[in-house]
Amino acid sequence: MANYQLSNIQPGLTFTQDGICNILVWAPLAQSVNILLTDTGKKIELNAGEHGYWQLSTTEVQHGDLYKVVLNNEKQLPDPASRAQPQGVHGPSQVIDVNGFKWTDNQWANPALEQYLIYELHTGTFSPEGTFAGITEKLQYLKELGITAIEIMPVAQFPGNRNWGYDGVFPYAVQNSYGGPAGLMELVDACHKKGLAVILDVVYNHVGPEGNYLNEFGQYFTDKYNTPWGNAINFDDAHCDEVRNFFKQNVLMWFRDFHVDALRMDAVHAIKDFSPKHILQEIKESVDELMADTGRKHYLIIEFDLNDKRFIDPLPQGYGMDGQWIDEFHHALRVTAGGERNGYYADFSGISDLAKAYRDAYVYDGQYSPHRQKKFGTKTDNPGQQFVVFSQNHDHVGNRLLGERSSVLFSFEMQKLLAGAVMVVPYLPMLFMGEEYAEQNPFQYFVSHTDEDMIAAVRKGRKEEFKAFHAEGEAPDPQSEETFRRSALNWDSIHQQQHKTMLHYYKTLIVLRKQSLALATLNRHQLEVSCDQEQQTLWLHRWEGDEHVYCFMNFSDKVQQLALPADGPALSIILDSADPEFGGQRSTSVRGG
Amino acid sequence: MANYQLSNIQPGLTFTQDGICNILVWAPLAQSVNILLTDTGKKIELNAGEHGYWQLSTTEVQHGDLYKVVLNNEKQLPDPASRAQPQGVHGPSQVIDVNGFKWTDNQWANPALEQYLIYELHTGTFSPEGTFAGITEKLQYLKELGITAIEIMPVAQFPGNRNWGYDGVFPYAVQNSYGGPAGLMELVDACHKKGLAVILDVVYNHVGPEGNYLNEFGQYFTDKYNTPWGNAINFDDAHCDEVRNFFKQNVLMWFRDFHVDALRMDAVHAIKDFSPKHILQEIKESVDELMADTGRKHYLIIEFDLNDKRFIDPLPQGYGMDGQWIDEFHHALRVTAGGERNGYYADFSGISDLAKAYRDAYVYDGQYSPHRQKKFGTKTDNPGQQFVVFSQNHDHVGNRLLGERSSVLFSFEMQKLLAGAVMVVPYLPMLFMGEEYAEQNPFQYFVSHTDEDMIAAVRKGRKEEFKAFHAEGEAPDPQSEETFRRSALNWDSIHQQQHKTMLHYYKTLIVLRKQSLALATLNRHQLEVSCDQEQQTLWLHRWEGDEHVYCFMNFSDKVQQLALPADGPALSIILDSADPEFGGQRSTSVRGG
Repeated sequence: MANYQLSNIQPGLTFTQDGICNILVWAPLAQSVNILLTDTGKKIELNAGEHGYWQLSTTEVQHGDLYKVVLNNEKQLPDPASRAQPQGVHGPSQVIDVNGFKWTDNQWANPALEQYLIYELHTGTFSPEGTFAGITEKLQYLKELGITAIEIMPVAQFPGNRNWGYDGVFPYAVQNSYGGPAGLMELVDACHKKGLAVILDVVYNHVGPEGNYLNEFGQYFTDKYNTPWGNAINFDDAHCDEVRNFFKQNVLMWFRDFHVDALRMDAVHAIKDFSPKHILQEIKESVDELMADTGRKHYLIIEFDLNDKRFIDPLPQGYGMDGQWIDEFHHALRVTAGGERNGYYADFSGISDLAKAYRDAYVYDGQYSPHRQKKFGTKTDNPGQQFVVFSQNHDHVGNRLLGERSSVLFSFEMQKLLAGAVMVVPYLPMLFMGEEYAEQNPFQYFVSHTDEDMIAAVRKGRKEEFKAFHAEGEAPDPQSEETFRRSALNWDSIHQQQHKTMLHYYKTLIVLRKQSLALATLNRHQLEVSCDQEQQTLWLHRWEGDEHVYCFMNFSDKVQQLALPADGPALSIILDSADPEFGGQRSTSVRGG
Repeated sequence: MANYQLSNIQPGLTFTQDGICNILVWAPLAQSVNILLTDTGKKIELNAGEHGYWQLSTTEVQHGDLYKVVLNNEKQLPDPASRAQPQGVHGPSQVIDVNGFKWTDNQWANPALEQYLIYELHTGTFSPEGTFAGITEKLQYLKELGITAIEIMPVAQFPGNRNWGYDGVFPYAVQNSYGGPAGLMELVDACHKKGLAVILDVVYNHVGPEGNYLNEFGQYFTDKYNTPWGNAINFDDAHCDEVRNFFKQNVLMWFRDFHVDALRMDAVHAIKDFSPKHILQEIKESVDELMADTGRKHYLIIEFDLNDKRFIDPLPQGYGMDGQWIDEFHHALRVTAGGERNGYYADFSGISDLAKAYRDAYVYDGQYSPHRQKKFGTKTDNPGQQFVVFSQNHDHVGNRLLGERSSVLFSFEMQKLLAGAVMVVPYLPMLFMGEEYAEQNPFQYFVSHTDEDMIAAVRKGRKEEFKAFHAEGEAPDPQSEETFRRSALNWDSIHQQQHKTMLHYYKTLIVLRKQSLALATLNRHQLEVSCDQEQQTLWLHRWEGDEHVYCFMNFSDKVQQLALPADGPALSIILDSADPEFGGQRSTSVRGG
């Protein structure tokens, strides 16, 4: 009944300030574990510790060395906690001493979550370079746009050079083709210098199908639960302590070693954990400890489709997550805007759901969901900054057959209405890269596997998926480089008038949101909303102190009359999306008042 | 987005006070549903309702009628919510009007949980008759023994006549060979007249492998989770609302229609439910409503091996369960008494764990468990009456290769020590039928399937199970009637001296527990415990008001000296398990004091 504490155990090769390398490999099934320095052929034997850990403190390895982990003097494998895979997922791991990076961001303070205005981007397709350095080139642009945080889609090492990031197989390694760990540190440092926060997307619910060597090392998976990706990651079965530690330490690494400001944790509803303390609670506790140590703030934001406020309620009863994505706002908004109504949109009937999303955050908060075929959701009174909303994101664009953005699905006027609808929420708005200038290129699903069977399986899977969703047209080949290229932003287009106008509109909207106390203060109690089904209009009123903002949204294709409150204050127009300034034919006027 | 409420929907055929039969069948996949009265051939067509329910209110069916449910004018099946299966699991269902029973227990009041002193029994092997009526014959005996509640192993209809009860396939039907629903009502009524409470064991984590027609009707199972019995019951997947209602209404039926005082819910750790509101919370809320309606008290006790206090904490944060079994007390006690240490006993090292069980209820409350290979458990400060403990039960006897009771594994003196150790707990003690007179017959695993493949599978499974647990000897054939007969209590033996003496000892112990304020008050804060590893002695001190009870337990085979508190009160011996009165050679004396 030995007790042991893992809270300070970092998997992989890490360095003390004195340059001593602490090696820790979890390999409960191995009889012996060695580190093989592949350039010199030198082998370093690790000592067996408790609970399947193998360890050594040594000065024999140096930053930059390539290595493999040798199990039983037989299998040479990359390190599950590798910090870098310069030759890809099947190659040797690389020793990284994070202490070598010279940070220049000590003036940086992570802003309050309320101030986050998020810009989601994919490193490979955002800039012409497709690297972290390419993002750095655009920081001035982003700063001028007005957003306050970039959210980087997953960068954990994946097979090949082209991937959304959700096929990562080394949670601790930064994708080599993006610029590796040093590249990410430079980007974060540059963001902080610009006054931008960095959110990193991380995946703790599965690992990708190619290059996953975890099973060779230990019981990272359990067959107790089935997920869309097969066996679930083992968060509550035998040997789960070490697996929980593996992911918990990963969170701490991004915050401590990479100065990342917030994580966006992918689809946490697929994390299956019946432990008395959910892994998200344990992660939150560790982050609280880290923050107390360093004095820096970090946020945990979850992608989560369960409308269960327990996840965002404070510890110890709740899971303590700082925020969550709510796709329902997106779904309600798209349906209201005249988008399609099949698949997961089937639960949404339009403008009354959108009104509910403004008012209650969760559209489904206990009623029957025809799509899920059960009663769904809880009521939530959580503060507005706990909810991230958007009119499009990588998933809802990229999970379409052809990956079309709103810019090619909706009229110019409707696009502006969508943007406005997002920018006035009492929640945190998020843009998807390029939407601010109505990028026309699609964002399609792409991979670059090296295994032929895997490539065939992904192609087949993609076809199957779209058989169910919508059966028109041929899905682009995910493995083709062309699909990837087609999905890159076309920065040249930004100089064309229409795109310029849209960018101007977005900037104006963002300035308005930041400068208006009524909009910037995320008080869900100082909000009224009503809608007219027939007119397809929605009326949102938010206030703070003496400042009142009324947002009138007309989702119909006609001019509509809106009755103002009879005894209301005198109103003046502060922004009209149909103003000629924004490429429209001004239609809004205030009568009476 | 239609809303609907199921809280008052009882599955199956139920009657109003006016004799109108309300028929409700959940068959979401069916195109038509009829009730076929098998004696007359009359068919009654049900109306399609929402969410796959089919219903009708009619006077055309009468108490006692045999019927089948006909799906799509094709398949004739027994009703999933059948109240009686007089011809077994594959036969027709029987219409039961519970209003016809004349209850005589309106003077009965379910005692406080603190007063429960539980006697677990198996209907088929407890009495010579093997029926509810057979139990009734023994109520005077049980009353004189001093227990306050009987706990009946599951009675939901299972295949054949011989089964522990955990292979039940009709959760609403009372086993025909035990006496059916009327037999159970008579037994409960008789218990209440005698002043005994009734706990019924129910199984909501799986259904048995033979006679399970649920899949023909609807999505009762989900492949999201794997359990020891295959796919889990669907408590959180699509269509779960109707499945949740099926089991919730089952709880209410036992309390409302059968006057059962408490349920013991089998292995609730195998109920997989990630819903915002766990099914146990929903059940507890319904029971609270029922109790408010009727003014009667009912308790929910769970079999549960997760040491997670969330399950027994009050609503709304906890799951609101009134009590739980703690097997750990049993394991620690058996190991201390010199029992085997393999399998699940491997986590227990003896007397210090037993001391911890007295002090902390959970032995594992966060430390690493070698058997589970992870850190395990939470600390609990829940009141003593929330924990049920025992020195043996059906599982720990019956899951042995030969099903031996303590009476053939431990010396007479040790048996008395085990009984004493249980009877002084600040928890609820439970006996397993026959232990009070040191029954010598085993309690073995028995079934009576009718399907040959199933019989072969069960035999094979049993052999496999014991390959892992302990590989000595041949497991008795579970299907053999002889195995069942061998497991019945031998009431004749009670007249033999040794058995008489043991019975006298148990009665004396029980009287002592009830009469001593210090023992009967389940105050976990007025308790001290210490132990001596070398001597193998344990010292338990409990008090209430001015009354102090010291329990000295000597698990060694030698006479041991115990130092009393130097400045403690004068002590007198109130019970000595080694007294000649209980067949021993008095060894205990108090010196000094």
